[in-house]
Amino acid sequence: MECIKTINEVRSIVRKAKKEGKRIGLVPTMGYLHEGHLSLMRMAREKSDFVAVSIFVNPIQFGPNEDYESYPRNMKRDLRLCEDVGIDVVFAPEVPEMYPEELLTHVVVEKITDNLCGTFRPGHFTGVATVVSKLFNIIQPDIAVFGQKDYQQLVVIKRMVRDLNIPVEVIGAPTVREEDGLARSSRNSYLSYEERKVAPVLYQSLLKAKGMLDKGERNPDNIKKVMEVMISSKPYTSIQYISIANPCTLEDLEVIKDKALVALAVYVGKTRLIDNILWGYEDA
Amino acid sequence: MECIKTINEVRSIVRKAKKEGKRIGLVPTMGYLHEGHLSLMRMAREKSDFVAVSIFVNPIQFGPNEDYESYPRNMKRDLRLCEDVGIDVVFAPEVPEMYPEELLTHVVVEKITDNLCGTFRPGHFTGVATVVSKLFNIIQPDIAVFGQKDYQQLVVIKRMVRDLNIPVEVIGAPTVREEDGLARSSRNSYLSYEERKVAPVLYQSLLKAKGMLDKGERNPDNIKKVMEVMISSKPYTSIQYISIANPCTLEDLEVIKDKALVALAVYVGKTRLIDNILWGYEDA
Repeated sequence: MECIKTINEVRSIVRKAKKEGKRIGLVPTMGYLHEGHLSLMRMAREKSDFVAVSIFVNPIQFGPNEDYESYPRNMKRDLRLCEDVGIDVVFAPEVPEMYPEELLTHVVVEKITDNLCGTFRPGHFTGVATVVSKLFNIIQPDIAVFGQKDYQQLVVIKRMVRDLNIPVEVIGAPTVREEDGLARSSRNSYLSYEERKVAPVLYQSLLKAKGMLDKGERNPDNIKKVMEVMISSKPYTSIQYISIANPCTLEDLEVIKDKALVALAVYVGKTRLIDNILWGYEDA
Repeated sequence: MECIKTINEVRSIVRKAKKEGKRIGLVPTMGYLHEGHLSLMRMAREKSDFVAVSIFVNPIQFGPNEDYESYPRNMKRDLRLCEDVGIDVVFAPEVPEMYPEELLTHVVVEKITDNLCGTFRPGHFTGVATVVSKLFNIIQPDIAVFGQKDYQQLVVIKRMVRDLNIPVEVIGAPTVREEDGLARSSRNSYLSYEERKVAPVLYQSLLKAKGMLDKGERNPDNIKKVMEVMISSKPYTSIQYISIANPCTLEDLEVIKDKALVALAVYVGKTRLIDNILWGYEDA
């Protein structure tokens, strides 16, 4: 497995694989890989013949008061994990390789970026859509795999690809959880021992919501209130949002019909965690 | 030569040509082809093995009070001209093929879209950058040729391609003029006989500017004043802007040094015409 730092080199390696008739898969990541990333890689491995993983902590998707500087990094461990999964090439550019001059061009996705995380992270999804466009243009994959834990991100990327006719199949992969239900996230490493103990309440509240929906509750406010009480009963927690939304438009539902996305962002200590479940789908 | 209306079909035709090892050229147009377009096509013909021409009057680059509805169209004649130049495929989608649903994604280029035409056509270059992104993603050309008559458009597309790592070589081609100097434009067809007679004053004023620059004038205001007087002395004319700008950043120059873009937009009757020259380049 090669670890490549430059756009030209990774392009030439992928071009060679394409010429051999191989189907190219891409898993874009910010590194500090965990079991969630590995599941995306294994899915890409299954669905393509040549898998590229990008590792790039993308500065333009972080707000000025967010954790760009402190975002956890461990390239050596990441490369070992990629090797173990059978990745063909890791693309790990430095910031100046991706942003060599002032970036004047952005890919802006409207409406579906207004709610959920978009409300609290202005510019975040523009940064994500822009860097993913760049990675798609650099690697030119046939498929790309993203985690459903960042559900809004997945919806934004899928819409961008459709709107701009990008020739990539975007695949969402299920959230991988710890034994106690906590969604895997590189940011879990920020949690203190005490914080880590309470963090599973996010998923527990999502399961509670699912239970209420299964039993016939159709008023989002009733569900959100129960979730709020559950989460707020735990120390260190501070809810940023709880949303019960249309899974396509991400707009808050006033009444729940057949399908719903239940999503939340909660600070546990100083660490912002997100999680979500889909309800009303056969496999969800 | 085939004329294709759907994205899927044109993709499969281009894919076939790529598999045969052919280098793909694209000339994006809004149709109503004239000698200017034909020169772009001939250039693409020279620099690639398989040339696609797109003909699409792109609604999202027109403002609400602009001429989208009345923009001249003549598909039959356009196809004959493409055939004559030896184009391999014409991609001429209808609007719903390009915009099947609400478009939530836009490619936004900042700063270099603030001056010149951008000042007077808010959203225009976002519409251009977005549709060109789509065309690039649909055709996936190796090269694309644009006219220098729309100099700002050329700069915007080149910057977008660089910023987003789009794997296309963008080539600018010289403005083609009528015998009396008027830049070829589909919109020239709007001009009445009397308006057509005065329209060459745009290029004459640019030549005057060049003469002053050649003689050592370095104050943009002095040059602009002379141009204004020349143009305003003609009936039917109304100047929208005259700019003497940095050819890279498109910012107005306070003092001219070694290189300059002299660009203008002038209404002749109800028809908005643009033209420009570069000064200080060996081949300009």
